[in-house]
Amino acid sequence: MRIALLAAAAATLVATLPAKAADLAATAVSLREKALVDSTAWNVVESLTTEIGARPQGSPAMDRARDWGVAKLKSLGFTNVHVETFEASSWLRGAESAEIVAPYPQKLQILGLGRSTPTPPGGIEAEVALFKSLDEMIAQPPGSLAGKIAVVTQVMRRTQGSEGYGAGVRARGGGVEAAKRGAVAYLVRSISTDDTRLPHTGGATMSGIPMAALSPPDAELLERMVARGKPVRIKLAMDSTYRDKAPAYNVVGEIKGREVPDEVVIVGGHLDSWDPGTGAIDDAAGIGISTAAAKLAGAQRPRRTIRVVMWGAEEQGGSGAAYAAAHKDDVAKIVVVSESDLGAGEIFNAKLPLGSLNHPAMRAFSGAVTPLKVIVSRSPAQSGGADTEGLRALGVPVAEFNQDVSRYFDLHHSADDTLDKIDPKELAQNVAVWAAFIYTVADSDIDFRKTAAEAK
Amino acid sequence: MRIALLAAAAATLVATLPAKAADLAATAVSLREKALVDSTAWNVVESLTTEIGARPQGSPAMDRARDWGVAKLKSLGFTNVHVETFEASSWLRGAESAEIVAPYPQKLQILGLGRSTPTPPGGIEAEVALFKSLDEMIAQPPGSLAGKIAVVTQVMRRTQGSEGYGAGVRARGGGVEAAKRGAVAYLVRSISTDDTRLPHTGGATMSGIPMAALSPPDAELLERMVARGKPVRIKLAMDSTYRDKAPAYNVVGEIKGREVPDEVVIVGGHLDSWDPGTGAIDDAAGIGISTAAAKLAGAQRPRRTIRVVMWGAEEQGGSGAAYAAAHKDDVAKIVVVSESDLGAGEIFNAKLPLGSLNHPAMRAFSGAVTPLKVIVSRSPAQSGGADTEGLRALGVPVAEFNQDVSRYFDLHHSADDTLDKIDPKELAQNVAVWAAFIYTVADSDIDFRKTAAEAK
Repeated sequence: MRIALLAAAAATLVATLPAKAADLAATAVSLREKALVDSTAWNVVESLTTEIGARPQGSPAMDRARDWGVAKLKSLGFTNVHVETFEASSWLRGAESAEIVAPYPQKLQILGLGRSTPTPPGGIEAEVALFKSLDEMIAQPPGSLAGKIAVVTQVMRRTQGSEGYGAGVRARGGGVEAAKRGAVAYLVRSISTDDTRLPHTGGATMSGIPMAALSPPDAELLERMVARGKPVRIKLAMDSTYRDKAPAYNVVGEIKGREVPDEVVIVGGHLDSWDPGTGAIDDAAGIGISTAAAKLAGAQRPRRTIRVVMWGAEEQGGSGAAYAAAHKDDVAKIVVVSESDLGAGEIFNAKLPLGSLNHPAMRAFSGAVTPLKVIVSRSPAQSGGADTEGLRALGVPVAEFNQDVSRYFDLHHSADDTLDKIDPKELAQNVAVWAAFIYTVADSDIDFRKTAAEAK
Repeated sequence: MRIALLAAAAATLVATLPAKAADLAATAVSLREKALVDSTAWNVVESLTTEIGARPQGSPAMDRARDWGVAKLKSLGFTNVHVETFEASSWLRGAESAEIVAPYPQKLQILGLGRSTPTPPGGIEAEVALFKSLDEMIAQPPGSLAGKIAVVTQVMRRTQGSEGYGAGVRARGGGVEAAKRGAVAYLVRSISTDDTRLPHTGGATMSGIPMAALSPPDAELLERMVARGKPVRIKLAMDSTYRDKAPAYNVVGEIKGREVPDEVVIVGGHLDSWDPGTGAIDDAAGIGISTAAAKLAGAQRPRRTIRVVMWGAEEQGGSGAAYAAAHKDDVAKIVVVSESDLGAGEIFNAKLPLGSLNHPAMRAFSGAVTPLKVIVSRSPAQSGGADTEGLRALGVPVAEFNQDVSRYFDLHHSADDTLDKIDPKELAQNVAVWAAFIYTVADSDIDFRKTAAEAK
């Protein structure tokens, strides 16, 4: 029954498109159906989280992840598999602890933020100055936080798209503002939508003071304690190591194009992760989705080359810039670039390169993904993901496949970022969308620079 | 509108009961309505979790909790507030860590189990023998686990009542069986219904080997690693201190009966907690519910005395037995005893003492709690809670107020046992049920020993 209906739907779609586009559409539909029952992405994610786990930039685990990436791409039949080495900063966590020492002694659950300064050995102890928003802290005059531990307990709003995170994540960077006002340390409620007692780490701007995330229940405990009106004192001990330049790696593999192999469609995820979890949703999922979709699309032998890049230093920054710098002379041949880096939730919204919406190839794509409940937006793509920014700045067109992140920020950058949180069906929906996109671009002659120029 | 309907319902209830019972019923209904909007229980829970937090038996925090209990009961108007000191064992956690060292290095999230033996300084390293059920491990012959770390990854079933926990918790005690077969340590998947990367601790029988709980995602990681067929090695370092006899405290307060003050209704919760969370659902909730209900019921000046006991060593055992031993000569005057110790979820089912179901006082109770969707069971109470077992063994009647524990074991004995997990409305429903029960027993002449004898 289902097969008959799908065949009928495909036939309808094909009938409304020009001949070449009709072939594209038929193959995209067939790829979608294959992707929905394909286990490659799941197997890749299972392998990376089980055999490597946490892999922060500059750690021995990241070296193992690099070797894993090379072996995985080779075993999946990719060619020209190689590592592109560069240098990026590396902040690695040491021992950390925090406790309220007065008026009511209690332990706190914290995680240092990337680029935090360590405390002196033995830690520091100071009184808390608590603010319920970053802006409230910023409103304080210079010197007003002298000798204090500044605490911001601003709460992130859960949203389907990334607006909640976009607004919330500002608070993670508040350490610089706290330091300017004399604070000796900065604690922030985790940028998280969950109520679990696990803090969420993340990168912050170096501020010269220790900076850490509190779990949401710990932030609320501090609020209640401060509300009693007695001075609250915290003891904080944090260690870490920081290198401005550590070896870093982008791992690359290709499926050569049938007709125009020098024209390249680039997709990928990032191989590095934060340390508390196993980097499952962030971003083994993106590695699995992009690799599986590239393999499925590539098996159709499209005209153009498909390249998978496993960027190696997204969390602490630098892999996208390094990739762009290394390939600045071939950007004209990069047809489009996009990174999967918002977890494993379903794609609910796709944004295509400017002006391409009505191109037959993109109509083939849209038609194929409509049954996956993907909204193909009238607005063009703004960003293809953090690691594509370098190429975008050099003029490479980008596309966006926006995942539903309603639950992503429950887990993101925390110990809870583990395989069991991924729904294999939602993961497969992602692969289906990416496979359809990769194929319709790689087997067509669509020129996104031209569609953009015509749209202006 | 609501008030009119409630008044009509109360009037109907009152009309079907004898005169004294009608008074009881009317007051029980009025108490129920007061309890549903009373904030005493919430305030007690907020105070205990904020001002004391984790309070394991034998810790300085438990001393502070004792003093807190005395002050709280006094401030709420209880009389004869006092501490009954006894001795109970105390196991206190030290530093703990675990990691997989081969074939794929990864850190593990563990929590030692109560009465675990520490590892030697520097820890132990051994190969894993993994079993997906306790019974599978028990089926192994003597000596077969020699030199191994036994791991049981049995999964707990989520149930509305406590059957899931009853079946699951056996695995926590598997250390003794592992040690008998030669194992050098025992790791068990947390007795938990959650998938958060927080382990759940709990008491275990002393086995002479280190014993710890794995978080659910860590148990699944080990399963996947073991399934690859290569030997899996774990390094485990655990420290703890154990005292067979440490000072312990039951904190007691009363509201004296109007007519027969020597007849006593005993209710309570337990004041001690495990260490990773703040002991909010286990069992600040029970302390808050029983104290608030006793206060509300006591404000009606019932015939009999209402006594609140904050038992001091439920988690590691001994407070119920100590209470019974200290009061063995007055058990004849204890009308009934019950403990609230299953969290803050709604009461969905009440079990009354044998033979009492149709007594007018219990019909007054039943009628009052039916609108709270409480099923008053045809089956009699079997247990009034862990701390009532000593009194029950001496013939004291017990009652059960079974809470919906569908979510309780997501949090229980873990760092996630924090105030924010409690719904104030659900907490208030508990207070309403307890207040109705306490009052209908304390202001009647019901004799549960007599109803039980007549039922036999």
